[in-house]
Amino acid sequence: MSQKVVLAFSGGLDTSFCVKYLSEDRGMEVYSVLVDTGGFSDAELKAIEERAYSLGVKKHVTMAKTDDYYQQCLKFLVYGNVLKNNTYPLSVSAERIFQAIAAAEYAREIGASAIAHGSTGAGNDQVRFDMAFRIIAPDAEIITPIRDLRLSREAEIEYLKAKGVDQEWHKAAYSINKGLWGTSVGGRETLTSNGYLPEAAWPTQVTETEPKTITLDFEKGELVGVAGETFGNPVDAIRKLTALAGPYGIGRDIHVGDTIIGIKGRVGFEAPAPLIIIKAHHTLEKHVLTKWQMYWKDQMANWYGTMLHEGQFMDPVMRNIETFLSDTQNHVTGKVHVQLAPYRFTVLGIESAYDLMSSVFGSYGEMNNAWTGDDVRGFSKVMSNQVMIYEKIKNQ
Amino acid sequence: MSQKVVLAFSGGLDTSFCVKYLSEDRGMEVYSVLVDTGGFSDAELKAIEERAYSLGVKKHVTMAKTDDYYQQCLKFLVYGNVLKNNTYPLSVSAERIFQAIAAAEYAREIGASAIAHGSTGAGNDQVRFDMAFRIIAPDAEIITPIRDLRLSREAEIEYLKAKGVDQEWHKAAYSINKGLWGTSVGGRETLTSNGYLPEAAWPTQVTETEPKTITLDFEKGELVGVAGETFGNPVDAIRKLTALAGPYGIGRDIHVGDTIIGIKGRVGFEAPAPLIIIKAHHTLEKHVLTKWQMYWKDQMANWYGTMLHEGQFMDPVMRNIETFLSDTQNHVTGKVHVQLAPYRFTVLGIESAYDLMSSVFGSYGEMNNAWTGDDVRGFSKVMSNQVMIYEKIKNQ
Amino acid sequence: MSQKVVLAFSGGLDTSFCVKYLSEDRGMEVYSVLVDTGGFSDAELKAIEERAYSLGVKKHVTMAKTDDYYQQCLKFLVYGNVLKNNTYPLSVSAERIFQAIAAAEYAREIGASAIAHGSTGAGNDQVRFDMAFRIIAPDAEIITPIRDLRLSREAEIEYLKAKGVDQEWHKAAYSINKGLWGTSVGGRETLTSNGYLPEAAWPTQVTETEPKTITLDFEKGELVGVAGETFGNPVDAIRKLTALAGPYGIGRDIHVGDTIIGIKGRVGFEAPAPLIIIKAHHTLEKHVLTKWQMYWKDQMANWYGTMLHEGQFMDPVMRNIETFLSDTQNHVTGKVHVQLAPYRFTVLGIESAYDLMSSVFGSYGEMNNAWTGDDVRGFSKVMSNQVMIYEKIKNQ
Amino acid sequence: MSQKVVLAFSGGLDTSFCVKYLSEDRGMEVYSVLVDTGGFSDAELKAIEERAYSLGVKKHVTMAKTDDYYQQCLKFLVYGNVLKNNTYPLSVSAERIFQAIAAAEYAREIGASAIAHGSTGAGNDQVRFDMAFRIIAPDAEIITPIRDLRLSREAEIEYLKAKGVDQEWHKAAYSINKGLWGTSVGGRETLTSNGYLPEAAWPTQVTETEPKTITLDFEKGELVGVAGETFGNPVDAIRKLTALAGPYGIGRDIHVGDTIIGIKGRVGFEAPAPLIIIKAHHTLEKHVLTKWQMYWKDQMANWYGTMLHEGQFMDPVMRNIETFLSDTQNHVTGKVHVQLAPYRFTVLGIESAYDLMSSVFGSYGEMNNAWTGDDVRGFSKVMSNQVMIYEKIKNQ
Repeated sequence: MSQKVVLAFSGGLDTSFCVKYLSEDRGMEVYSVLVDTGGFSDAELKAIEERAYSLGVKKHVTMAKTDDYYQQCLKFLVYGNVLKNNTYPLSVSAERIFQAIAAAEYAREIGASAIAHGSTGAGNDQVRFDMAFRIIAPDAEIITPIRDLRLSREAEIEYLKAKGVDQEWHKAAYSINKGLWGTSVGGRETLTSNGYLPEAAWPTQVTETEPKTITLDFEKGELVGVAGETFGNPVDAIRKLTALAGPYGIGRDIHVGDTIIGIKGRVGFEAPAPLIIIKAHHTLEKHVLTKWQMYWKDQMANWYGTMLHEGQFMDPVMRNIETFLSDTQNHVTGKVHVQLAPYRFTVLGIESAYDLMSSVFGSYGEMNNAWTGDDVRGFSKVMSNQVMIYEKIKNQ
Repeated sequence: MSQKVVLAFSGGLDTSFCVKYLSEDRGMEVYSVLVDTGGFSDAELKAIEERAYSLGVKKHVTMAKTDDYYQQCLKFLVYGNVLKNNTYPLSVSAERIFQAIAAAEYAREIGASAIAHGSTGAGNDQVRFDMAFRIIAPDAEIITPIRDLRLSREAEIEYLKAKGVDQEWHKAAYSINKGLWGTSVGGRETLTSNGYLPEAAWPTQVTETEPKTITLDFEKGELVGVAGETFGNPVDAIRKLTALAGPYGIGRDIHVGDTIIGIKGRVGFEAPAPLIIIKAHHTLEKHVLTKWQMYWKDQMANWYGTMLHEGQFMDPVMRNIETFLSDTQNHVTGKVHVQLAPYRFTVLGIESAYDLMSSVFGSYGEMNNAWTGDDVRGFSKVMSNQVMIYEKIKNQ
Repeated sequence: MSQKVVLAFSGGLDTSFCVKYLSEDRGMEVYSVLVDTGGFSDAELKAIEERAYSLGVKKHVTMAKTDDYYQQCLKFLVYGNVLKNNTYPLSVSAERIFQAIAAAEYAREIGASAIAHGSTGAGNDQVRFDMAFRIIAPDAEIITPIRDLRLSREAEIEYLKAKGVDQEWHKAAYSINKGLWGTSVGGRETLTSNGYLPEAAWPTQVTETEPKTITLDFEKGELVGVAGETFGNPVDAIRKLTALAGPYGIGRDIHVGDTIIGIKGRVGFEAPAPLIIIKAHHTLEKHVLTKWQMYWKDQMANWYGTMLHEGQFMDPVMRNIETFLSDTQNHVTGKVHVQLAPYRFTVLGIESAYDLMSSVFGSYGEMNNAWTGDDVRGFSKVMSNQVMIYEKIKNQ
Repeated sequence: MSQKVVLAFSGGLDTSFCVKYLSEDRGMEVYSVLVDTGGFSDAELKAIEERAYSLGVKKHVTMAKTDDYYQQCLKFLVYGNVLKNNTYPLSVSAERIFQAIAAAEYAREIGASAIAHGSTGAGNDQVRFDMAFRIIAPDAEIITPIRDLRLSREAEIEYLKAKGVDQEWHKAAYSINKGLWGTSVGGRETLTSNGYLPEAAWPTQVTETEPKTITLDFEKGELVGVAGETFGNPVDAIRKLTALAGPYGIGRDIHVGDTIIGIKGRVGFEAPAPLIIIKAHHTLEKHVLTKWQMYWKDQMANWYGTMLHEGQFMDPVMRNIETFLSDTQNHVTGKVHVQLAPYRFTVLGIESAYDLMSSVFGSYGEMNNAWTGDDVRGFSKVMSNQVMIYEKIKNQ
């Protein structure tokens, strides 16, 4: 009986090569898996499935993981206002690890003796796949044909042609990765330190020119309403906001960051919903959380983002941090008003029953009745005690 | 012989009241001090001096502290990419503490037995003044007439009129504070959680409509060139950038934050140069520093900003952090290309001899020769060891 | 009708003075409260109650809060291995804030219009009382006769004598504060930087001379067994361990630390149970938690200890940190063997089903089968990539 | 011409095997290097050199690196009070990385094309060697015969015998590694989670039974005097303290920690000088540094220790942290009195001109004149503002 291998399959050249290589050269039964984290239309999913079967997989499975992806990961990126290096919403980092976990769980479920991915040896994704596979399905062999064989694109096409797969392999000018939490764009300019993506390279073209003000509704840290529409599932709220803000060209930037393998990498991204949600959520938090809640959320969330980026999502400290972040969100409920405009947005203000700036205590001036000038004088005096003594000692 | 009192003087209603109150009601010799941290024109400085003498000060001193302010504080805010809560460049926080220190040092220098400020009991500035005064001139009495007497604006005007100071005290719609590191704007909308400043409230009106690309030159972390012009003094580079970017309406936002006295406060600001410099500097750093340098710089700088904001600039840990931040800047040298556009800017890319993405090693693909797929396979395996064991133990 | 005032009462000179002062000079109805956090015998509690009534309180209440104290505070100090500055188990800091909270809640419950404490103006306790009172019973006036009147000890005795309270007020050579989590000792030597407490000053004298090995049982981070005895309530386990280890003179030290009011303070303490529990618990954690769980627990717990020490126990971030710490304890179950000896103890080893060093995977050598030398070679290569590139760029 | 290889040589079985294997099987010119970081006597160094030549090395070099080791590493462990997981002074971690760096620099200096170490594939040392070699001599091949060939001890002895090296290879009951900063001890008991080393296993036996009080002199954070003797070189002071405290059995413990390769490892150690110096230095710092200096030193130093442990000493952030730590030590000057006793020591107190508890300001009570009870009342009020508001909002 031939060996079962689960292959994380995208339908592109590399994973198509893997199907043929694994089934024909290695004689394995290939179970291809497409894990959907929100970046595919039904038509695309169907086309990928057909492609898989036409290449000769034993079975193809589409795993609809968008809700899990949100519930088990994106939610915490919102709670933590996570932008890697204050820039990148971790669009690809987050979804790749989820895809890897889903594929590994499937391998374990069907008792596959091997599990394969089509990543090259030059990027982050290989590590994310390797780590998830090894942790979740430690007894399965990990097979990485593209990384190991180091074939050129041309050689892969040649190989497939020889196997009877004679199709046009379109080489896009820009490599695009689309998911619920944003779309990454890589290409000529991002390979150097000094190029910016041309207008045409961005997946969503700018068609909206008139500024528009919308309201986002948050409930315990989660986005539940957009522009007057309420959503039972925050995933739908994110999609709605993407649809509204994308045509403004909002949320574009280029991030340069540390790859897991130690080199610097640059990637363009278009992530209107994440950028808007995070700034809106952060503003709301600044109104309803205490200073030290903000401080420690930042510490934990920053770390969470880094470990997520580096494929260490399965470390139990991540569950601990998620518990912490969730516990801080009880009061993060309210409305945030946001103005959308071409290439930019502005958070205008918030409303919340938990607003610590609430006028329940009267206006700013009246609040002052809670303490006197003498109180602050005493506060300042005590606060300066240690440094005052320090200066005296130093200068004695 | 009457007591000498040093008064931090701005020429406004509150500090004008203080001059009269201290000299006439309290019978003190008033030495008024205006500490210039980059927000005044020569004409304004001269007018303030004349006002001081007309009110009856014994002596008025203008202390030109802009260079010190940059060298002893702003420089570190750039090194650390400091934006309070990822938003506010600490424009007022930083300059107020510098003004307080300068006034206190002057008091010590002339042997004043008292030192006064005109802050009310409702904000941050009182604490900054109190603390600096107490630490630097601990033997001087601190006098705060506005905070202690709690007079209304009308009562102050009445008092001054009775003393023969019968001028028009214009009540601006918005309270403006201008300095080298940005201008704050407070008014009706910022008193609530849900208003945004109207276009007319912003000090610099938008007159530039055409995008323009400029280059910023950094040397060891400091801005030394703007748009082709080189500056011996980064202060001049900051002014130049402000002049270029201000008319685009860049760098506007509203920050809500924790005041030192525990309440939440909201303030508008217009800070084109700080926002552009910090994002450009940060991008350059992402290319030239290691991952852990970035991480620890963030931690230290975030704390630095918080303590600066809260008037704790004199704690010796601040000197230690400055030393740390300076030590990280040796390689932060290079060019950053920035596009200015109405209400926004984009960092396009960088060039640096210290760029860790440098093509000296060949292109991205070739760099891969430094390691093999097997190396990364081994890396991933070892990296996942602990969690792999953890999962096995957990599920045994 | 006269005003109700709740007084945190200890039965000592200061709070006895307060009863008379409040009831007779201020004409208030005094409700004295003794909050027991584990430091009093039944006889002591009864004597304090009698003293209160003899001084003329309207009502005296003994609040038995030891279990709450453990459940709401001490438990987290164990989870977090909290020793302030790696030294002090926060014995007094923790119990004082609990006593303050209980008193304030009682004041709110009975609708008292004022609440009083007997702290002086020189230490930490005043701030802990003030803050708890203000946060929990913000409408109650805070009365602090000792701090405000600044009477000498002699004047207080004189005052009481004049009021008919003519007893011997014994001035102990050392000021002792006893609670479940340790006993503090202050006196002549701790007032300077360079004295150590004499043997006779320690509350528990050393009577055990023979080393003894005991086993501590932890379940999800909590101490549930000591020396073969199992306890339903960790409070009893702590008492048992105190009884066993105290006569060895274990857990003595002097801590010098930052008071809340900015000065340095020095305090001796005797805390056998906390010191042993924390080191034992920490050792167990080093076996069952991942590296990053340990790291982040340390960060959070250190902060928790500092805020607890400084009277900021009521900040909601403390609840968030408690949730985090609890979430890390699921696997902290097992036995820790400890040797007790005069003035010291040694953690000998641990046993746990969750031990990540578990021999389930075979011995140390065999574990090595999980990876090869080549895997580590690859790991090292990838791990050194960034600094290798950095060095090349630097030296080019 | 045959290839030059530098071999980190200790004279033990593994590296003796490496000499023969490299020179005879691989036909290389072997340059053996012994890097002395304070753990060898002159006689031992001479014996190792003779052994090297007798095995057939082309050249043997003894690099005396103890002073560099102190100046470039240990000094910062003292400044930072670094104990890994509050336990282990990093005795071996620190010296191994220094030995690796020295060997790599020597390889670069003599133009060796390869560099070898004798570590197995099961521990931390292989990674430390690999990383240092790759960063400092990136063009040299790294050869690791023991890790790659995976020979048994018996097979190595057999191999050497066949090559004419027919000596007694004594298998010690405990593996000992001695250096300036402590001695590690591993053996039967440390291979499990639950054994403690027997008395006889400790390298230094307990011969002192009478307690003795000594004084340590620190100058800007460095130990310069011990028991009345002043040392120009802190290395000598450390040796002196080791000689004094070792015979008391002070500084023994077992650490369980995370290895670089993800498994847990347990090691006994005997480090009297590091343990005493760090607690004494820490106590002195608690008297002379501000609260926030202590806090940030802890953060940085903890990280420094972790990266040092994990072979990442060469990351430039380590230089930045060293600069920070050095900058905090200006006032860490004074005397610390310590009592030595069998198996334990006690820090009795300190004296320092920079003591913030200094009586220059009068006694503790008089210091209180710097502020009043009302000042602290105001302080407490302002400090509790945010949480007071938070509670009101929450309960409204």
